[in-house]
Amino acid sequence: MSQYTEILLTQRPDGNPIGPHMFEVKHKPVPTIGPGQILIKQTHMSLDPAMLGWMMPDTNSYIPRVELGEVMRSSGFGQVVESNHPDFAKGDNVMGMMGWTEYLVSTGQGINKVQAGVTAEMALAVFALPGLTATQGLFNIGKPKVGETIVVTGAAGSVGSIVGQLAKADGLRVIGVVGSEEKADWIVSELGFDGAINYKTDDLESKLEELTPDGVDLFFENTGGPIQHHIFHRMNTHGRIIVCGMIADYTAEEPAPGPNWINLIKKRITVQGFAMPDHFGDVPNLLAKLTPYVMQGKVKYRTHTLQGLESAMTGLNLFFTGENKGKLLVEL
Amino acid sequence: MSQYTEILLTQRPDGNPIGPHMFEVKHKPVPTIGPGQILIKQTHMSLDPAMLGWMMPDTNSYIPRVELGEVMRSSGFGQVVESNHPDFAKGDNVMGMMGWTEYLVSTGQGINKVQAGVTAEMALAVFALPGLTATQGLFNIGKPKVGETIVVTGAAGSVGSIVGQLAKADGLRVIGVVGSEEKADWIVSELGFDGAINYKTDDLESKLEELTPDGVDLFFENTGGPIQHHIFHRMNTHGRIIVCGMIADYTAEEPAPGPNWINLIKKRITVQGFAMPDHFGDVPNLLAKLTPYVMQGKVKYRTHTLQGLESAMTGLNLFFTGENKGKLLVEL
Repeated sequence: MSQYTEILLTQRPDGNPIGPHMFEVKHKPVPTIGPGQILIKQTHMSLDPAMLGWMMPDTNSYIPRVELGEVMRSSGFGQVVESNHPDFAKGDNVMGMMGWTEYLVSTGQGINKVQAGVTAEMALAVFALPGLTATQGLFNIGKPKVGETIVVTGAAGSVGSIVGQLAKADGLRVIGVVGSEEKADWIVSELGFDGAINYKTDDLESKLEELTPDGVDLFFENTGGPIQHHIFHRMNTHGRIIVCGMIADYTAEEPAPGPNWINLIKKRITVQGFAMPDHFGDVPNLLAKLTPYVMQGKVKYRTHTLQGLESAMTGLNLFFTGENKGKLLVEL
Repeated sequence: MSQYTEILLTQRPDGNPIGPHMFEVKHKPVPTIGPGQILIKQTHMSLDPAMLGWMMPDTNSYIPRVELGEVMRSSGFGQVVESNHPDFAKGDNVMGMMGWTEYLVSTGQGINKVQAGVTAEMALAVFALPGLTATQGLFNIGKPKVGETIVVTGAAGSVGSIVGQLAKADGLRVIGVVGSEEKADWIVSELGFDGAINYKTDDLESKLEELTPDGVDLFFENTGGPIQHHIFHRMNTHGRIIVCGMIADYTAEEPAPGPNWINLIKKRITVQGFAMPDHFGDVPNLLAKLTPYVMQGKVKYRTHTLQGLESAMTGLNLFFTGENKGKLLVEL
């Protein structure tokens, strides 16, 4: 009987790097399926910043935390290897919430078939959480208009890179904030951003001023950190701030202060936080909005692929250091 | 030839109390009117926190600042004493932006006739900026629902007291934050608030927790200050924060930090600043929404009336100390 591996969360983040001490690696026999079930062999797993939130003790989060002793939660791509389900056939490519495991048994709930021709990379880097999040945040919350200026933090990240490209395709001036020269170069040369700020080396205030001569109308926030205050102060009247991620504060004991609200009045600014679980019912509309941009070649992506399930345990630290170059995936 | 008094702004706030050193009191002959003009004798002048913003050097504000050497800006109530205008007759009661002056000549622009039976006090305390602001902020931005909990800061103030009463009339649980026991008593006993917090003497965290057992769905912010952080942390999922005033920070050199944005994501909160000049085109709709509440006796108000134009110069300080008991007016 062949074996497979799954990884359980056994300890919550404590401010130190995430690593094997927080997980239990279990080897189990590949299960058999019952009536109405399918067996999925996961081939690619997505690592997302949201996972850091799911691991925290905070029960007040928008998605239930992962309980200690549970298989760590994640979305993934795989193949149906056995099916007792009328909607799925052996060999179908599928995606959905699969968890840190090589095999899973499913009733098909939350598992979607992937169209032929869509690779695992494209499925997880564009049509999964990153693309849906970018679409919801930019269009439904940000309501961008031609000629406006948007600043995107985490601009080389899975969500930010898509936000910037969608905004660019719609005629906005697009400035991205990144953490390396290589990423700055990538978003400008490859993705077509109008400018990049390296938050680690640039003079934030003067660089931002130079790149946003007409101020900032939209601010798509993925990171937090000191750049937030600079962008906030460049906001124009009736500006919209879309708060999507705050990686700088996910595991902070004492979150950094935010901007004073007086400018919200002076400039009539709206700051709106959102999270995709509220919008899962709207996924068909979001995909309908996103797909044409992808089909027209306006959404490029790159992936940073780790090898083997166990690499996920340390791979999550790449979100803190920003060393991942592209959508972080694990190939199983 | 009879004389009248007007007061010009000659110096901007410097962190010290506002007083006569910042103004010039001028005595001038009562003017005569030309074709199409009216002469208004102002009888009551409104003092509003927004004036503190208009006096500041910041040109980035939503209303142009008052330039040095200009008559200080304000709204008021008065009578037409001469008219060469087809729409106004001698004896008409009118309201509008009149400035710190006993008389003014107007073409009628921005001056509205006041219905018989509406006193100067009701006109300025309810149907002017305070009531319009409360209506816009609560209904159009806050979108309150029966059974929700709202916390209003500056709850005994001109805007806050109306917000609370409108919310109460619509079936919300209404908690007000005030700066004295007398005001706490007034908003609960007279206005029907469900509870009051004295930010100067109460333990903010425990009192807020006690009074908002189901958390806070709407936060109508008129003041800023440390209570802001406590209310922010009590916000429920999908909460709305309406940022209307930040009196604690209007003249601050270094505004106090705001809350970190991570909870905006976790709880999908919207924070929206607004200012009435954006909505002046919507005044007829706002009045149509507000008037039935007033006619049904659901909006009580009280006024704190200073005597004589010159009392305005020191009267503005009452906004900082919170010593005014009711809508601040000057009777000329």
